[in-house]
Amino acid sequence: MFAVTILGNNSAVPAFDRHPTSQVVTLDGNNYLVDCGEGTQIQLINYKIRRSKISHIFISHLHGDHYFGLIGLINSLSLLGHKQEMHVFGPSPLKEIIELQLKVADTQLCYPLEIHHITEAATLLDNEKLRVKCFRTNHRIECYGFTFEQKKQPRKLNLEKAKEFDIPAVFYDRLKNGENYTRKDGTLVENESVTLPAEAGKKYAFCADTKYDETLIPHIEGADMIYHETTYLDNLRERAESRFHSTTKQAALIAQKAGVKKLLIGHFSSKYDTLEEFEAEAREVFQNTELALEGVCYEV
Amino acid sequence: MFAVTILGNNSAVPAFDRHPTSQVVTLDGNNYLVDCGEGTQIQLINYKIRRSKISHIFISHLHGDHYFGLIGLINSLSLLGHKQEMHVFGPSPLKEIIELQLKVADTQLCYPLEIHHITEAATLLDNEKLRVKCFRTNHRIECYGFTFEQKKQPRKLNLEKAKEFDIPAVFYDRLKNGENYTRKDGTLVENESVTLPAEAGKKYAFCADTKYDETLIPHIEGADMIYHETTYLDNLRERAESRFHSTTKQAALIAQKAGVKKLLIGHFSSKYDTLEEFEAEAREVFQNTELALEGVCYEV
Repeated sequence: MFAVTILGNNSAVPAFDRHPTSQVVTLDGNNYLVDCGEGTQIQLINYKIRRSKISHIFISHLHGDHYFGLIGLINSLSLLGHKQEMHVFGPSPLKEIIELQLKVADTQLCYPLEIHHITEAATLLDNEKLRVKCFRTNHRIECYGFTFEQKKQPRKLNLEKAKEFDIPAVFYDRLKNGENYTRKDGTLVENESVTLPAEAGKKYAFCADTKYDETLIPHIEGADMIYHETTYLDNLRERAESRFHSTTKQAALIAQKAGVKKLLIGHFSSKYDTLEEFEAEAREVFQNTELALEGVCYEV
Repeated sequence: MFAVTILGNNSAVPAFDRHPTSQVVTLDGNNYLVDCGEGTQIQLINYKIRRSKISHIFISHLHGDHYFGLIGLINSLSLLGHKQEMHVFGPSPLKEIIELQLKVADTQLCYPLEIHHITEAATLLDNEKLRVKCFRTNHRIECYGFTFEQKKQPRKLNLEKAKEFDIPAVFYDRLKNGENYTRKDGTLVENESVTLPAEAGKKYAFCADTKYDETLIPHIEGADMIYHETTYLDNLRERAESRFHSTTKQAALIAQKAGVKKLLIGHFSSKYDTLEEFEAEAREVFQNTELALEGVCYEV
């Protein structure tokens, strides 16, 4: 499964039980954390997301509502006996901020922590299942969005054919991975005769904080799902512009021009106690829009 | 009213819906924040404690569970348009940690912030209502407890006498402050004839993180209420010692030896999902012990 769970959908300050930005991208049991506002470790507990399954954390920029929870999570993982290597990506001087706080507390982490500074658009992670890239967004300070590209999906099982060839269900996962099956009598069942080709991998893009900027489009083009901030409703377009944020219709227009399949919107200003209008406005421009709601898991 | 509201009573990591250390000392409508673990600003919202009424913040030490929420609170106050001067007291290099994070976010606070480094036992605040002092505790890193001494309580009104002299109720607060009353016919009612002397001011002591250490006693002697950590039950005395923490019975013994009136216990290890035993054990040594429970306001 390739999905995104929202942990925080509010901008700037916590309000109306909405939390600062954080979300978890999950692919085949691995968790990738995107931004880490204050209280993220508590949201992870609330939504029963295993902190120990997080191996990579991506921080878009150093405004507090996107990273003040990072030091707490790093610290708690150590106290909880985390062992796995942890890679954190974010703009400079994130490494100095974290290391200073660990040093003054005389903390020796019990797991290896690598903090990598992002300085330009680049590929940050590339393994057999996933490629993560970053790209610049247009914000008041240096800020990056992230794309998550699934490498390849498993082949599709032709269940009828598999049964016809008498292949045990326990072997189905290996069929999906492309293996042939050898029957007890030694005859070979070629994979292609019981499976259909894999679909292309899916793509998710997190557009971080940004004003309306069409230079983002090449990075997110054709994505299956994108998250684009909508700090304000569309009548506050000037305020959005001056604060390097976007409105509902601007986010929807980016989604439309980039030809993506689905748009998630979030990073709502604390001016707004209810959110229905955000969805309605964005849908006027881009129909397949959904509010990024905390605790909800959106499949890519 | 002189009282303490608990915002977080857990140690190290958040668990079982218990939060890292923070509490608010309230005296006559002013709020003084003591420690500020991650999520404190959200706890302040949850318990409807006005952030704008906080003028002083006291940080005991730079372990994350006591201060990771400070930068978020400082930042949010500015976004919310706080105007009043804010004084923060804590060990070095708290100022550098906070200022680095404000600088990288290009944040100009909209209120004056003064961060004062504590380096030894000292008087930190001394106004007409309150004196706050700090004292060293015995922890793994430099750590301070705080005493809050109410300067003087109002004089007590003798209601019967006040009625006898026909003094209007609207003047009662001024009587409590020691003023005489002049009647319409010009005759004077001396304050002493309608009030009783003020009681001595009360004293609260926050003992921060510490192992059992009798050198704390002179600082907290005779207090009306103290908070002393009890990270562990008494069967884990060795673990407490090695980690510079205290057990239930050790906290109770300090309360007993210091001749205080009431003991609050908190900073519970995440090993424990329930807390009843903490209270029971401490009461074996010091009867007037209460669990420091989140959201509860304890009058000094």
